[in-house]
Amino acid sequence: MQIRAVLIDIDGVLYVGDRRIEGADRALRELDRRGIPYRFVSNTTRRSRASVALRLEGLGYAIPESRIITAPVAAAAHLREGGRTRCFLLTTPDARTDFEEAGLLAVEEDADAVVVADAADGITYATMNRAFRLLLAGADLVALEKDRYWMGSDGLMLSAGPFVAALEYAAGKKAEVVGKPAPAFFLRALRETGARPKEAAMVGDDIVTDIGGAQACGIRGILVRTGKYREEALQRSGVTPDLVIDSLAELPDYL
Amino acid sequence: MQIRAVLIDIDGVLYVGDRRIEGADRALRELDRRGIPYRFVSNTTRRSRASVALRLEGLGYAIPESRIITAPVAAAAHLREGGRTRCFLLTTPDARTDFEEAGLLAVEEDADAVVVADAADGITYATMNRAFRLLLAGADLVALEKDRYWMGSDGLMLSAGPFVAALEYAAGKKAEVVGKPAPAFFLRALRETGARPKEAAMVGDDIVTDIGGAQACGIRGILVRTGKYREEALQRSGVTPDLVIDSLAELPDYL
Repeated sequence: MQIRAVLIDIDGVLYVGDRRIEGADRALRELDRRGIPYRFVSNTTRRSRASVALRLEGLGYAIPESRIITAPVAAAAHLREGGRTRCFLLTTPDARTDFEEAGLLAVEEDADAVVVADAADGITYATMNRAFRLLLAGADLVALEKDRYWMGSDGLMLSAGPFVAALEYAAGKKAEVVGKPAPAFFLRALRETGARPKEAAMVGDDIVTDIGGAQACGIRGILVRTGKYREEALQRSGVTPDLVIDSLAELPDYL
Repeated sequence: MQIRAVLIDIDGVLYVGDRRIEGADRALRELDRRGIPYRFVSNTTRRSRASVALRLEGLGYAIPESRIITAPVAAAAHLREGGRTRCFLLTTPDARTDFEEAGLLAVEEDADAVVVADAADGITYATMNRAFRLLLAGADLVALEKDRYWMGSDGLMLSAGPFVAALEYAAGKKAEVVGKPAPAFFLRALRETGARPKEAAMVGDDIVTDIGGAQACGIRGILVRTGKYREEALQRSGVTPDLVIDSLAELPDYL
């Protein structure tokens, strides 16, 4: 493959749970050595960008915060640009900081938008019901991602997607998805590398949001067999990756 | 209308929140006087049948428990008939008693079925995640209802539907719906009156599950303008009620 820039998913590609993916760090250093720019694009919406960077550091990765593009950061920018400054945040307290730093107001009433992330224990009947009422009162439904699940250290964990689907069903409104597989999200990250879509590849463990999403923008999709990778999900998806590799460690061999 | 039997929804038709619908009780006594049998069919899945009867008594209605057909009672019978005895119950503690009385086992592991009711505060990230994992492990998804919302005393409240939709989305499985608008549910209640569908009418405040559901079985649908009734919902639904009345109090005038 002739690749001039790489976008890389974080969760399931750099680590699974608390375990680093063997050889991933070496692969990143090899990209640096060859002068191939890369950015991290993540739908992991439980953490603020600062926390994501800190966590990667804790796992032994030396990745500057500026190279990480997360759905909360992209969503906060997108909402502010659209003048939707009053947000009901169905997020973790940590992810909330990305919105507050962008100058958005976290409100419980009169919201312009209901923002749904993977809120973890922030999901309760009460918070879902409040979100629902605000949607009926006119707020837009903004989803940081619509993933089904991710691989936690003790098994699969629900992502934001199911709760977005719940609110769509309840309020009869379609969510605007800001994270992967939204084309704007991939293109925003790619812009920073200076490469065009056909010169780039996206490496991820989610066949639909990572691979299908990237391919829909003209970016090549490289699926890794780590994280939530499952042979059945690949078969069922109707998506054909440009390449399937065992893990990020193998990436340099194919570029 | 030539009607020989009536099915009546409870929540929104007999009461809204803690307020009795004016004249509803008089209408029931008039049906008794004319010898028109009626049964109550309810998707209110927060309470056991015994509690529903007790609550109606507290509101001044004298309705024997045997005339009330609730989704938990119907679901428990249906599950037992199908040999699915190990159930993960995403329900309130009160609704759980209907399942235990039917001889079903409430389990947290190795479930044959994940049963979803309006679980109120029983909905948390942890319980949703457990339901999801059991579904992936092979359990069937059984929904007591798939309603969007109901009218509580301080505003609209999410029903089971959104959380069923969430689990369907997460696990890629379609739920089996046991309560309204499942034809078997209406027909089970009707059987007790001895009337045939074309001789019967269903009175409810939900244009889709009450009116659309009844009509799909050949039962006439009478919409009341109480409870969660909204003109827009009627317009959007694509369902045409056989009759629209202000409240149950008016029913005898049309029979």
